[in-house]
Amino acid sequence: MTGIEEFTSQYGLVRKIDAFGYLDYLKSNPDAPRKHGKVVLVTADTPLKASRGEGKTTTTIALIDALNARGIDAAAVLRQPSMGITAAGSKGGASGGGKASLTHPELIDWGLTGEMAAIAAAQNLLVSFAEKAVDEGRIDTILVPRVSEVPSRSLRQITVDSGKNNVAERVVLTPTCEMMQIVVVSRSMEEIGERVAAMIAGTKDGKPVAFGEFIDLWRITNMLADAVKPALTETLNGSPVYVHGGPFANVSLGIPTLVSVQMACALHDVVIVEAGYGADAGAQKWLDIACREYGAQWPSAAVVVTRASTWRDDPALSWRYPFHVQRLENYDIPTFPLINLWEGEDDQIEGLKAVAVEQRFREPILGNLFRDGGEALAPQLDGFIEALTNAPMAPQFHSRKGMDLVENVKWIAKSAYGVPEDRILLKDGFIDSLTAARELCREAGVSLDDLAVVAVKSPATMTDDDTKPEEERTVTLKKVEVHAGAGVVHVNLTTSLTTPMPKIV
Amino acid sequence: MTGIEEFTSQYGLVRKIDAFGYLDYLKSNPDAPRKHGKVVLVTADTPLKASRGEGKTTTTIALIDALNARGIDAAAVLRQPSMGITAAGSKGGASGGGKASLTHPELIDWGLTGEMAAIAAAQNLLVSFAEKAVDEGRIDTILVPRVSEVPSRSLRQITVDSGKNNVAERVVLTPTCEMMQIVVVSRSMEEIGERVAAMIAGTKDGKPVAFGEFIDLWRITNMLADAVKPALTETLNGSPVYVHGGPFANVSLGIPTLVSVQMACALHDVVIVEAGYGADAGAQKWLDIACREYGAQWPSAAVVVTRASTWRDDPALSWRYPFHVQRLENYDIPTFPLINLWEGEDDQIEGLKAVAVEQRFREPILGNLFRDGGEALAPQLDGFIEALTNAPMAPQFHSRKGMDLVENVKWIAKSAYGVPEDRILLKDGFIDSLTAARELCREAGVSLDDLAVVAVKSPATMTDDDTKPEEERTVTLKKVEVHAGAGVVHVNLTTSLTTPMPKIV
Repeated sequence: MTGIEEFTSQYGLVRKIDAFGYLDYLKSNPDAPRKHGKVVLVTADTPLKASRGEGKTTTTIALIDALNARGIDAAAVLRQPSMGITAAGSKGGASGGGKASLTHPELIDWGLTGEMAAIAAAQNLLVSFAEKAVDEGRIDTILVPRVSEVPSRSLRQITVDSGKNNVAERVVLTPTCEMMQIVVVSRSMEEIGERVAAMIAGTKDGKPVAFGEFIDLWRITNMLADAVKPALTETLNGSPVYVHGGPFANVSLGIPTLVSVQMACALHDVVIVEAGYGADAGAQKWLDIACREYGAQWPSAAVVVTRASTWRDDPALSWRYPFHVQRLENYDIPTFPLINLWEGEDDQIEGLKAVAVEQRFREPILGNLFRDGGEALAPQLDGFIEALTNAPMAPQFHSRKGMDLVENVKWIAKSAYGVPEDRILLKDGFIDSLTAARELCREAGVSLDDLAVVAVKSPATMTDDDTKPEEERTVTLKKVEVHAGAGVVHVNLTTSLTTPMPKIV
Repeated sequence: MTGIEEFTSQYGLVRKIDAFGYLDYLKSNPDAPRKHGKVVLVTADTPLKASRGEGKTTTTIALIDALNARGIDAAAVLRQPSMGITAAGSKGGASGGGKASLTHPELIDWGLTGEMAAIAAAQNLLVSFAEKAVDEGRIDTILVPRVSEVPSRSLRQITVDSGKNNVAERVVLTPTCEMMQIVVVSRSMEEIGERVAAMIAGTKDGKPVAFGEFIDLWRITNMLADAVKPALTETLNGSPVYVHGGPFANVSLGIPTLVSVQMACALHDVVIVEAGYGADAGAQKWLDIACREYGAQWPSAAVVVTRASTWRDDPALSWRYPFHVQRLENYDIPTFPLINLWEGEDDQIEGLKAVAVEQRFREPILGNLFRDGGEALAPQLDGFIEALTNAPMAPQFHSRKGMDLVENVKWIAKSAYGVPEDRILLKDGFIDSLTAARELCREAGVSLDDLAVVAVKSPATMTDDDTKPEEERTVTLKKVEVHAGAGVVHVNLTTSLTTPMPKIV
């Protein structure tokens, strides 16, 4: 596409694109050519455990290779994995594998060009200034956590200024911090500055103090100058892959940056967006947060990835995969089951197809993507391509801004986890947490109900106990945490444990 | 030079060079063409205060512009400034100014391509594994500090795992950490791995435990893959400038990486190396640590920068500048005084030249470098160029490895600060600190006396009180800290305060 080259620079083995500049250019030059790409959401079954992926990235890569092989200009947008998690060895590489691989996965897995580190440093600078504000008596408690690129259980609760002020703090991993959320949702550096100014630094005598009251924003925006530029790499077959943003899907947004997707849609006909963990996590967040509340593009199709063993092996959990597929279809999003076969599972193909028929799915796409890559998919994509081609561009969806927070959470529990409001339980302390959050917002000049809800829960469970029969499943609401800068409110759900600071396994 | 292009990649507005690979290539191909550049050390008078620079970087830039204008292939090697210090606004930009500027100072000042962040993350990963080792009972105290890219007084003493193990830790700024030292002195990734393995993680029942006993080194070396590559940028006049490594000169080595200087010497005829703070700091460390102990190249000439006001305005301190000039001349290093004139000081030129004659200096080079850049210097460089051309390539200098630590410190105090051994004072606690360090080393299989001494002291003072008459000046030895991985031992000197974690000013 003409124009984009002026915004693209070589950065070692990847390229980086000034997306803010490019979108500005498109806005100022309405006659400049651009595409109007359709978004395909790649999501998955709820995993059996957080560390065992279904193969979404491998699927995404194979899918764009297959589409490009069929002459369709398709690109993918992935999140950047956490270097600290890769280095601590908790999860291994996150960038596909086998025939469905990126050209330089080691770059993607090991910090790319320092984007996340810059985001961590930016939030840490804010906290340093908050600590100085404590010294000066401007605030007495700090609400924004420090950020570490590397995990450690010991950092969950720390005390700084030991022996003097003894200020309680906690440290979170970069993919879980509010600064990452701000980078994910902002469409300009100016917006980033405004959101940072709106972040609540802490309280003074219980009253919130925003960073805008005492931070010079140039300190932050300069640190992020390169971090806000999406990286562009490619698959072994040359299909374009954009990598930008890295919020986790269990405790944060679970999606790549909105600006990278928007930019990709101006450059390609099909843009595959990979959302993290299961459809109850990243996909729910793309739809209900990014699309409804931040102007992101509603998907024209969806692919729900599962492994044969995940889907069928635990009868008590086998309700989850059909639930996800059906939910997306109910949104009028053509939804394609994709079963990622592991070694030795080829003989299960007929059996799986039969189950799909029973479940009244669209015909599933099946393949050993690690072994066969995009070639396994290309012959099976007629239905997929047809659905994409015919998908309407302007679907109906509405913002939920302004709705009472608890009502909003109940709506998510029903629509995304299948639990009706009469089985929503409130843990002791939830109401106090909610009241405190509402008060904090009010004092900060924000309405709690205007914030988008970020469901925080373990990736491996949708309800308090997914193995229970449907009529016994519950969702417990535990606590509320406001991220006024990002414009979201975190609600911790279910009795499962999940934390913004993993331990080294 | 042929060959270097294969090791060079574009990284946005700078280039990065695989220096390890290039030096390997030169070693394996003895017939491959290379230059044998001479090193010029740019240093300065001891500053009146740490935050007020003499203009070394401006001088370095103007000098290479002037040399290149006279047909000499000259390059500079600078340290990377701390992004956290730039962002916290304590010191402002560090990359020259006015006519003596780099093309993209904002990149250099604001994190370059994430090198320091990767170094910080690498040491933090080690500490995370050390904290896990505490959980597992493998060690009970942690000796390696955490690292922050951003300053904060509150981080000097912290407690992690609050409410449980309550482990005391401290946080240091990236330019002061041992991992930075390891990157500065290592000539290969293999050496980096060996040094990391030798870092003392902590103690168990008082006995040291090295990281090599429980860390997989690939975790660290992968994180540093890009950080070990020097960046290449240029002045506004196109003179090449390499930027790599960023240890502070008051509490660490104060010099750029040895591999970047070695590489530059293979590519250029003159390599200007800028060492931090005054000649008693960075220059002393280039000579006595880098050259004597780590195989770096002894300077063929030196330039000692001062401001007119620094040199003459405080009569009690005016002994320092001549002391530095004379000391370097006594090493047979042709030493050129360079007086950096500020606005309105042009009328002082004759007076300054007269003082130089009194002091029996070589004829000083004078100029307003901010205003006039390299053009101010070019006509004054005849003596400098002649000295460089005629300088012998193989000067006499010796390692001091194996000498008793206290004898070594006394030698530094005499040679670099002018204080003889009978005026070296030992603070209460120094002997205990020394004994503990010697014991720690012994148990770790290392001799304390084999470690290179890193003098740790405020940048603005050479002795306990520089305003005292010569026969009253003392140097107090305060404590000892071993960095077994980097192969150095820190000795805190003088009654001045200095810290590896600055506060936000």
